[in-house]
Amino acid sequence: MANAIRFLSMDAVEKANSGHPGLPMGAADIATVLFTRSMKFDPKNPLWPDRDRFVLSAGHGSMLLYSVLHLAGYEDMTIDEIKNFRQMGAKTAGHPEYGHATGIETTTGPLGQGIANAVGMAIAEKKLSQEFGSDLQNHFTFVLAGDGCLMEGISQEAISLAGHLKLNKLIVIWDDNNISIDGPISIADSTDQHMRFRASGWNTVAIDGHDPDAIFEAIENAKKSDKPTLIAAKTVIGFGAPNKAGTHKVHGSPLGAEEIAATRVALGWDAEAFSVPEDVTAAWREAGARGAAVRADWETRLAASDKKAEFERRFAGTLPGTLAGAIADYKKKLAEAKPTVATRKASEDALEVINGVLPETIGGSADLTGSNNTKTSQTKSITPTDFSGRYLHYGIREHGMAAAMNGIALHGGLIPYSGGFLIFSDYCRPSIRLAALMGIRVIHVLTHDSIGLGEDGPTHQPVEHMAALRAIPNLLMFRPADATETAECWQIALENQHRPSGLALTRQNLMAIRTSYSERNLCALGAYEVASADNAPVTIFASGSEVEIAIKAKDLLAAKNIAARVVSVPCFELFAEQDEAYRKSVIGNSPVKIAVEAAIRQGWDTFIGSDGTFVGMSSFGASGPYKELYSHFGITPDHVAEAAIAKLA
Amino acid sequence: MANAIRFLSMDAVEKANSGHPGLPMGAADIATVLFTRSMKFDPKNPLWPDRDRFVLSAGHGSMLLYSVLHLAGYEDMTIDEIKNFRQMGAKTAGHPEYGHATGIETTTGPLGQGIANAVGMAIAEKKLSQEFGSDLQNHFTFVLAGDGCLMEGISQEAISLAGHLKLNKLIVIWDDNNISIDGPISIADSTDQHMRFRASGWNTVAIDGHDPDAIFEAIENAKKSDKPTLIAAKTVIGFGAPNKAGTHKVHGSPLGAEEIAATRVALGWDAEAFSVPEDVTAAWREAGARGAAVRADWETRLAASDKKAEFERRFAGTLPGTLAGAIADYKKKLAEAKPTVATRKASEDALEVINGVLPETIGGSADLTGSNNTKTSQTKSITPTDFSGRYLHYGIREHGMAAAMNGIALHGGLIPYSGGFLIFSDYCRPSIRLAALMGIRVIHVLTHDSIGLGEDGPTHQPVEHMAALRAIPNLLMFRPADATETAECWQIALENQHRPSGLALTRQNLMAIRTSYSERNLCALGAYEVASADNAPVTIFASGSEVEIAIKAKDLLAAKNIAARVVSVPCFELFAEQDEAYRKSVIGNSPVKIAVEAAIRQGWDTFIGSDGTFVGMSSFGASGPYKELYSHFGITPDHVAEAAIAKLA
Repeated sequence: MANAIRFLSMDAVEKANSGHPGLPMGAADIATVLFTRSMKFDPKNPLWPDRDRFVLSAGHGSMLLYSVLHLAGYEDMTIDEIKNFRQMGAKTAGHPEYGHATGIETTTGPLGQGIANAVGMAIAEKKLSQEFGSDLQNHFTFVLAGDGCLMEGISQEAISLAGHLKLNKLIVIWDDNNISIDGPISIADSTDQHMRFRASGWNTVAIDGHDPDAIFEAIENAKKSDKPTLIAAKTVIGFGAPNKAGTHKVHGSPLGAEEIAATRVALGWDAEAFSVPEDVTAAWREAGARGAAVRADWETRLAASDKKAEFERRFAGTLPGTLAGAIADYKKKLAEAKPTVATRKASEDALEVINGVLPETIGGSADLTGSNNTKTSQTKSITPTDFSGRYLHYGIREHGMAAAMNGIALHGGLIPYSGGFLIFSDYCRPSIRLAALMGIRVIHVLTHDSIGLGEDGPTHQPVEHMAALRAIPNLLMFRPADATETAECWQIALENQHRPSGLALTRQNLMAIRTSYSERNLCALGAYEVASADNAPVTIFASGSEVEIAIKAKDLLAAKNIAARVVSVPCFELFAEQDEAYRKSVIGNSPVKIAVEAAIRQGWDTFIGSDGTFVGMSSFGASGPYKELYSHFGITPDHVAEAAIAKLA
Repeated sequence: MANAIRFLSMDAVEKANSGHPGLPMGAADIATVLFTRSMKFDPKNPLWPDRDRFVLSAGHGSMLLYSVLHLAGYEDMTIDEIKNFRQMGAKTAGHPEYGHATGIETTTGPLGQGIANAVGMAIAEKKLSQEFGSDLQNHFTFVLAGDGCLMEGISQEAISLAGHLKLNKLIVIWDDNNISIDGPISIADSTDQHMRFRASGWNTVAIDGHDPDAIFEAIENAKKSDKPTLIAAKTVIGFGAPNKAGTHKVHGSPLGAEEIAATRVALGWDAEAFSVPEDVTAAWREAGARGAAVRADWETRLAASDKKAEFERRFAGTLPGTLAGAIADYKKKLAEAKPTVATRKASEDALEVINGVLPETIGGSADLTGSNNTKTSQTKSITPTDFSGRYLHYGIREHGMAAAMNGIALHGGLIPYSGGFLIFSDYCRPSIRLAALMGIRVIHVLTHDSIGLGEDGPTHQPVEHMAALRAIPNLLMFRPADATETAECWQIALENQHRPSGLALTRQNLMAIRTSYSERNLCALGAYEVASADNAPVTIFASGSEVEIAIKAKDLLAAKNIAARVVSVPCFELFAEQDEAYRKSVIGNSPVKIAVEAAIRQGWDTFIGSDGTFVGMSSFGASGPYKELYSHFGITPDHVAEAAIAKLA
């Protein structure tokens, strides 16, 4: 049965003339044991919420996963898809792409992401099992990781978090084949992985990765553990290829017709390319059918549960009808109170409302809870022994946090939000990108969003991060200007089930911009007029903390009898999605267009044109009290007004 | 003597009303032992190449470093600077900023960076010691790291690389104070750090971080080791503060006048704020003067060395006069040969020339050597037992690689260049940013720079990375169009001693654009005309692989009697630095302006205006053969020509 994986993988890579045959051939025995003996799944109901999750963290070995899904009977993974490996439009992309086919639990390829996603999945399982009971949530999360995954720093964040939280239903199988692209692992690494994982509170065991019974036994033992487990499975990369096995030559290139023929002889495999003997297929399909009865039992339990409706809502990812009303009530209060408040604090206040009506939110911070304002009255801390809380102390692990959040969202049943500084979005950018690529709902609270953070200085002051994050396709980046906008942006982020969001929030206080109640979520327009003036010669566009500056500049101009419009731009991406008429009306016809953002210009030409005036940053920041920094860098109402007058002259 | 650090730190944080007193107070005994007994340095000659390096990886504890530098007699760290902590223009920024004052060996604050920089410094020392002899290079690299540094994933990459390379002159002192911002470390981490470091081949020892003799003895033992050493120094954060010591309250906020007064009583310190008793100052200055004689001996050895001139050139960072001629000769050959070649291969060819004349280059790759083409005939691999090579197998550790490169450049004597995929610049973005902030010469070879990599699919296809990297101030991002441009970009990168560079290079072959020899480095202009036409109604701007497409589009238009100019844009940043007349002449007056780049539009409006036409990407890529991808996404000569015609109509 394992040889079926090997030959499908070899044949597909050969036909594509591109891909990685080494891992599927080496790890075929592991995958066979997992999918035929150890794992709980039902190919006819591939999204069953209580299925075991399998994450191929070493995503370049994608043909392993595609072969197994095909053999086990996942209906969308046809033999034609296998034959179309790495071709345009195929479900069988070069690396596993979430959403292309069922059974692909996450998008992998960038190394180390999968193992960290799996930590999130295991967190979600443990949390939901606590909430809904083990009758409804009681599954394992399996990972197949390569040497590369374990060398990436993100893996350390993931394993130390998993060990700390005692995620005992997380089982990582390490394809310990001693080979990477440059050659033997020993040219770059000498880590004792067993000792390393044990240092983080894991079980570890070493086995022969080509001995099915040893694999099975190790997994069964791991299932009984009170800790996460690393199974170090010693394998031969490209197992079966008589001349290339065990070398880096088989890692990332087709074997070639000759070596494939020799492998057929060596492994006694008579079937033609892309064909699997009937008895082997039958055995695989029988194994794949094991889960149907288990799932049926589970369905019975679900039907009998008084939590059925809530459980189904949570896994559908739909929001409760109470959210919109709660936000509306809160916005009405804000319109009355007109608070002067930092948007990080406004975010906490919005979360207090949100967490009160959404039991599915699970918050956290990378050790900046008090600075990010991400903890509310409803979010007790989760501890290794008590998952009844709704708040994760992720530790100083931004990358691991973001990747775990992806795993939580992929698992289903929960909506994760994080806390971090905007500057440190750089630390977790690969995971934010993957969330955007997968189209999943994770929400990043990114505070201290400009030189406005003051004394911490340029290492902590984002100047290019808004531009860099706006550059990622399918990511909504918000920069609200006051408490009302903050609430609206939160609502949009929650309502977007199929894309991630980031909220850039201030450390410093901001005056209320939105002083009257609007039922409509104006931030959903991406940009909108906050101060209008007919035939104004000047329009000032701004986001976040600079909207206040824009309004004060407008007042200065008004004192000189120059009318100015002010447009708040909380979200570039949503503005781009509005119809052309609306966009034109917002951009308007003022001869002088100015944009103000305490960040670099890149991207703002969409609003002001390349001949517009930009007031912002063109260098790194500096250390000092924030008001002095704003003056030093010329981001002030005076300077904006002067720039307008100069341009009009 | 340690109390002098404590009170200067407390007083400065109090006056600034911002900062982190906890670490300086807790680690004062460690710093005192280091700077008065263990370390080799000379405050009167702070840049002495053979000084021991000290890296405050826990950069938020900056007052520890400033206090020590002041006390030890670094002349630019005056008491006025200490009093101006965290104020505009002060050398005493919130976090240590390289270049602000001598003795600040690297910019820290983003956690984990310092320890990884130190790995690079220790690599540089070992390499240069091998090259120039231990008479000229024989020093230690010390790190003071906090819990946050050790939790960040980058630290794992750093320590596993250091352990593998047996960097025995690297000594990390861990300020083991059990406290982070959110509270006790135990709420987020349970790692056995000793076991973890030992798993990576380190010595570890645990000591009382308030016992000077224990600290000294541990350091002396570490100096004799054949492995890097972790000294786990158990400290009390905020040591001496009677009510707040040992809690997270002392981590990142001023103590308050009352607690400072109580600390003065508790530690028996009578001196006023910012004043240090004369005898304590005298003892510090005497300790600071220890190094002068050692340095004088070293100067004598240098003067006697036949390697003196080369050693001094290398530490001055000036290039040998032979480089320009070698590049010119190579460009002449290229103008003759007009090779069709991938720019990653062209980069290898350029490096073959460069490495032949620059002994100071030290290459490497994050396990993609054969794909990045970063190894040349001159660059033998460095191994744990033989540092005579010039090539580092960094392993699958992009972040650790980039941070180590920063350390190599900061150390002096070497010019580091890396190899990685452009997509994985996301993994090392925090370190690239710090290189730009510090203004140091590191060069990142970033191959597989677009959908042109083909089958690996969207996880490996950068679409937003050029924009995101161009957004970082002070970073030169190059995207050369052919072999000649690649050579020119390499030359510019090497000649820019005070900023980092990235070269985005193709996997796929490109035709030669520059078919005649130009003595002038045209890429240094940032953008320049590669095909001219008087009064052309169309100008096409493109970078890298799309210049070929632009030229073919021009030919298609010519066949329809429409003249078009083509401008190659290898470097946005350098173009922005040209005078206005040149910029205007390059941008020109064509009514139709089109930009072509297999990436997102963001940033290109500088060339084409916001009403210009952009042919590129607006979404993630896909998996398939690259020519099909270019067709699918409409990045073809036909489509560019059609767009021009449509716009003209």
